[in-house]
Amino acid sequence: MTGVPAVVLLSGGLDSATVLALAHAEGHDCHALSFDYGQRHSVELQAARAVAEAHGAASHRIAGIDLNAFGGSALTDPDIDVPQAPEAGIPVTYVPARNTIFLSYALALAEVLEADDIYIGVNAVDYSGYPDCRPEFIDSFQRMANLATKRGVEGYHLHVHTPLIGWSKAEIIRCGGQLGVDYAATVSCYQPDAEGRACGVCDACRLRRQGFEHAGLADPTRYQSADVSRAG
Amino acid sequence: MTGVPAVVLLSGGLDSATVLALAHAEGHDCHALSFDYGQRHSVELQAARAVAEAHGAASHRIAGIDLNAFGGSALTDPDIDVPQAPEAGIPVTYVPARNTIFLSYALALAEVLEADDIYIGVNAVDYSGYPDCRPEFIDSFQRMANLATKRGVEGYHLHVHTPLIGWSKAEIIRCGGQLGVDYAATVSCYQPDAEGRACGVCDACRLRRQGFEHAGLADPTRYQSADVSRAG
Repeated sequence: MTGVPAVVLLSGGLDSATVLALAHAEGHDCHALSFDYGQRHSVELQAARAVAEAHGAASHRIAGIDLNAFGGSALTDPDIDVPQAPEAGIPVTYVPARNTIFLSYALALAEVLEADDIYIGVNAVDYSGYPDCRPEFIDSFQRMANLATKRGVEGYHLHVHTPLIGWSKAEIIRCGGQLGVDYAATVSCYQPDAEGRACGVCDACRLRRQGFEHAGLADPTRYQSADVSRAG
Repeated sequence: MTGVPAVVLLSGGLDSATVLALAHAEGHDCHALSFDYGQRHSVELQAARAVAEAHGAASHRIAGIDLNAFGGSALTDPDIDVPQAPEAGIPVTYVPARNTIFLSYALALAEVLEADDIYIGVNAVDYSGYPDCRPEFIDSFQRMANLATKRGVEGYHLHVHTPLIGWSKAEIIRCGGQLGVDYAATVSCYQPDAEGRACGVCDACRLRRQGFEHAGLADPTRYQSADVSRAG
């Protein structure tokens, strides 16, 4: 490892796997950071491990964080159902302040590693309903981050990279395909089964399946029902 | 409880106990939030519980967070000694991105509780060496926070209150004294013993002891050695 260190937020999903491959291709020593936040789909952490290994991450940390105690999202609160169809406005799968918390941890790790680059796979096209996926949020976080740390005070400039922010799912998949990302190892579904197989009907599954269609590539996703993979 | 809800970050130290008393006096229903972040001085969490109860907090949550995995501070890394004398520049007791992480959790809780007020006991006078205790950091965090959340998108305005930011320790102690804060229940020391008694020699102890002197009030702190309390 002789590259410049970067912290890469890695969920185990399609987007963050692509971001890791991109940061690696740009010559960074990538320190992957995942979170165990009581998400229903903890198989995504197994996916994150596989992806980190496949893309030669310099290190991979899984930080346990306590979002369950707060509730307020279908992804962490067992009393809220995961929707099976697109919603108007901000989805109930939105986890309050999630990206703010994730980026804050990434900032702490960057400070310790003396890294000035954080990569996050937010996307403002498919996830336009999430306030913390918007460019103005990321810009504002970056400004705050440079005031928050010892390294910022010392004159270094932290950069939050969001290479996917304006891309369609098809563009993300085509890029990842060229970089050799094994999307079969990734999990996007909000309610996968214990083997990591996708439901095929939640918002995340729908967007992902359409992405492969629009990219003109075969969908390697493992679905719980063969009907879904044929549904197109 | 009929007041306006507020999230109050509560460490169990002198400053945050005063902030809780202030927010309560301003008529807020105070939801206290503490962190178990592997700090050496976990007796401060017992102090936080006592303080939350004494000041009628509407709720008190302790979120477990994983800063140990990152290291980089004398407060969380057992390989770094706690200094016994003032340091130049940014102290080794600085925990990377700590206030950013704490405020991010407070933001998540505020979103869930539909609260628009967060109180934090940062102080830019005694802790001028900490980048994340400066007014420009707090202002920047507040701007970011209002872009980060559903509530911000809906037009509500989150306010991060830092009532102590420009106060001397003596001013904080005088204010808390008037509000009936029992400072004997609070722990400021970086290396207290298992009973919560203060070392009397670390930076935090030194600042606290001087605060009581300058306020002209008796210091109720329980010290490990009688010599310290007499040292003045």
